[in-house]
Amino acid sequence: MTTPSHQFPKGFTGSTASAAIKKPGRQDMALIVCEDGATAAGMFTKNLVCAAPLQLSKRHLIESRGHASAILINSGCANAATGTEGLSRAIDCVDAVARSLDIAPESVLVNSTGVIGVQLPIERMLPQIPGLVASLKGGDLLPVAQAIMTTDTYHKTAQVTVEHEGRTAIVSGMAKGAGMIHPDMSPPQATMISVLMTDAEVDAASLQRMLQNAVDQSFHRISIDGDTSTNDSVFALASGKAGAFPHAKVEQAFKQVAKELALLVVRDGEGFERGIEVKVTSARSNDEALKVAQTIAMSLLVRCAVTGGDPNWGRILAAAGRSGVPLRVEDLHLSVGGVDLFRDGAPSTTPLAERERVFRQPLVEIRLDLGQGHASDEFFSCGLTTEYVKLNADYTT
Amino acid sequence: MTTPSHQFPKGFTGSTASAAIKKPGRQDMALIVCEDGATAAGMFTKNLVCAAPLQLSKRHLIESRGHASAILINSGCANAATGTEGLSRAIDCVDAVARSLDIAPESVLVNSTGVIGVQLPIERMLPQIPGLVASLKGGDLLPVAQAIMTTDTYHKTAQVTVEHEGRTAIVSGMAKGAGMIHPDMSPPQATMISVLMTDAEVDAASLQRMLQNAVDQSFHRISIDGDTSTNDSVFALASGKAGAFPHAKVEQAFKQVAKELALLVVRDGEGFERGIEVKVTSARSNDEALKVAQTIAMSLLVRCAVTGGDPNWGRILAAAGRSGVPLRVEDLHLSVGGVDLFRDGAPSTTPLAERERVFRQPLVEIRLDLGQGHASDEFFSCGLTTEYVKLNADYTT
Repeated sequence: MTTPSHQFPKGFTGSTASAAIKKPGRQDMALIVCEDGATAAGMFTKNLVCAAPLQLSKRHLIESRGHASAILINSGCANAATGTEGLSRAIDCVDAVARSLDIAPESVLVNSTGVIGVQLPIERMLPQIPGLVASLKGGDLLPVAQAIMTTDTYHKTAQVTVEHEGRTAIVSGMAKGAGMIHPDMSPPQATMISVLMTDAEVDAASLQRMLQNAVDQSFHRISIDGDTSTNDSVFALASGKAGAFPHAKVEQAFKQVAKELALLVVRDGEGFERGIEVKVTSARSNDEALKVAQTIAMSLLVRCAVTGGDPNWGRILAAAGRSGVPLRVEDLHLSVGGVDLFRDGAPSTTPLAERERVFRQPLVEIRLDLGQGHASDEFFSCGLTTEYVKLNADYTT
Repeated sequence: MTTPSHQFPKGFTGSTASAAIKKPGRQDMALIVCEDGATAAGMFTKNLVCAAPLQLSKRHLIESRGHASAILINSGCANAATGTEGLSRAIDCVDAVARSLDIAPESVLVNSTGVIGVQLPIERMLPQIPGLVASLKGGDLLPVAQAIMTTDTYHKTAQVTVEHEGRTAIVSGMAKGAGMIHPDMSPPQATMISVLMTDAEVDAASLQRMLQNAVDQSFHRISIDGDTSTNDSVFALASGKAGAFPHAKVEQAFKQVAKELALLVVRDGEGFERGIEVKVTSARSNDEALKVAQTIAMSLLVRCAVTGGDPNWGRILAAAGRSGVPLRVEDLHLSVGGVDLFRDGAPSTTPLAERERVFRQPLVEIRLDLGQGHASDEFFSCGLTTEYVKLNADYTT
């Protein structure tokens, strides 16, 4: 899968380096810089085993009151469950970036992704930092998006243009998957990491609100394995270089970029063969609609049936029935790919061939109407495959 | 795997028949009868998509005030999500059993296991019922335990003797797995079904209490896929033929039989290669200990690591961290198979070979001490395998 070329917004530059963190020979460090400073916002995993770099980044965002000039990300090592030594190594990295750029340490954000419980090889990382700073350049996001990949099979970038009175700004971003994906802001190991950037002018408080809203409708609506990472984070930076724009337009662009990136993450879920899109309608509340949609999308048996292209729709109803949301079987209307499967308390008479066809699409579209109210929500996942199991049965060794 | 020969308690008989419900050529109907009647208790799935036979059995237990003379179970078809037609077919089966035994319909309990959303082939089942009644006999549980199997690779029976003042009674039981296993009382499809029997005399209210306590410490502590079935049930029957015994002794026997059966179900989980036992200690409450233990035992990434014998213990901490239970990383002490992995906020220095060894045992014993209080609990599951995915990717078709 290829994604089109996307760009850094005005004011941003990036670079990558190879520190042989897990294995030699690949770019595994990325630096993003906003030379004149940016307003900054962040969303962090709710996992209580929170990685050292995220503890540090949270502190920096508070101390700087929502401002940052640089983000350092590495793959190959999560620096989670590494104790005070892990925190100290994250601080060493931040200090090295701050020194090289001649900025305050609290204007540097940092995150890591990779194996949990292993210390960062700073003896190989710190010598790379002057080179990272020296090779910063604007333009294409591709090299930086590639350097943050772990088990991803393609890089993930997105971009939307905001127009107002003849002027334009862009919101662009990058993300990584592809396992330990269940952002709350949250899941563990391959971890979801995303950076969103704009050259529109946005104050720090508004940027944080925009980011939260965007994340809630995107990364919080996907799961690959239900395992919320110790390292999930989404950062947003605004350089202001393109001037002021109506906040509603900028927020809409953030939402669109975040949604595109989230769907790219699902489509690259470890062992991906087929996607699942669950929309639940006529619920009493959005929370209940989301709970039912998420339970269906994450059911192992539903996910196995999707992998096999097996129209075993009873598993979908069974998942709804155990979701914890009050519902009456007689009120349910289930369709997949537009084909009725269950309605008025009884299975439909749709021919087997037709049922098989809709379960064998690249994206299996599950629609469940609860027949109760007017709220709706959606959730995205993918079939569970033997390849996912193989990948994760032998990850560290 | 073989289990030793176990017997019906005094007063109980059983028989099996072949009705070609899903496929021809195997015993797929089982009848258990207590000719002189028994006190009866039941636990049923909390799944709101509750199968027709369970709706009927619940009603019968209430109408009969906890008495029953017969239990009819079929495999190959769950009779769930089958509407009023499904309920009517379950009633036809019950009525046929009642007529053949000359008893009231409300003293017949019934359950089904197999595919959801398909109607029972009663045209093939009803003609078998007179033969089932004619061939009832006591003794070995084996044939009946085999007839309720679906994807199980071995039958599951257990038996414990209760002694008091020179007299004996037995508690014996049977169960089936092996997928859609997450009793609450609950999971969907292969479904967990269990029947416990004793010849001790136990009033209906006490029997229900004993059953609940036994189920809570056994079937409610296991999961194979997190998918609570539409058809899970555990029935307990007491014939009274062996006279009265201290309730504490009988309850202890029920607990022991239920625990043995539950562990047999896990060890036969679909695609089973390696078991997982999680014990969480020093929690503030049993509920919190259970929540952490269950989150670890059900984490896809932990389960994949166990399959691969990969000592990726960071996934265990990450699962604990997302369990929703407040905890501090510095307080955690994690060991697997007696080998320290994380303590005092930092990874241990246990050599890799030693860590690999404990992750490659037939049962991977995970111990997490939360360092908070005095409560503890446990949960059992198994590694997630490619075989599980293959089995469930192609179940109906």
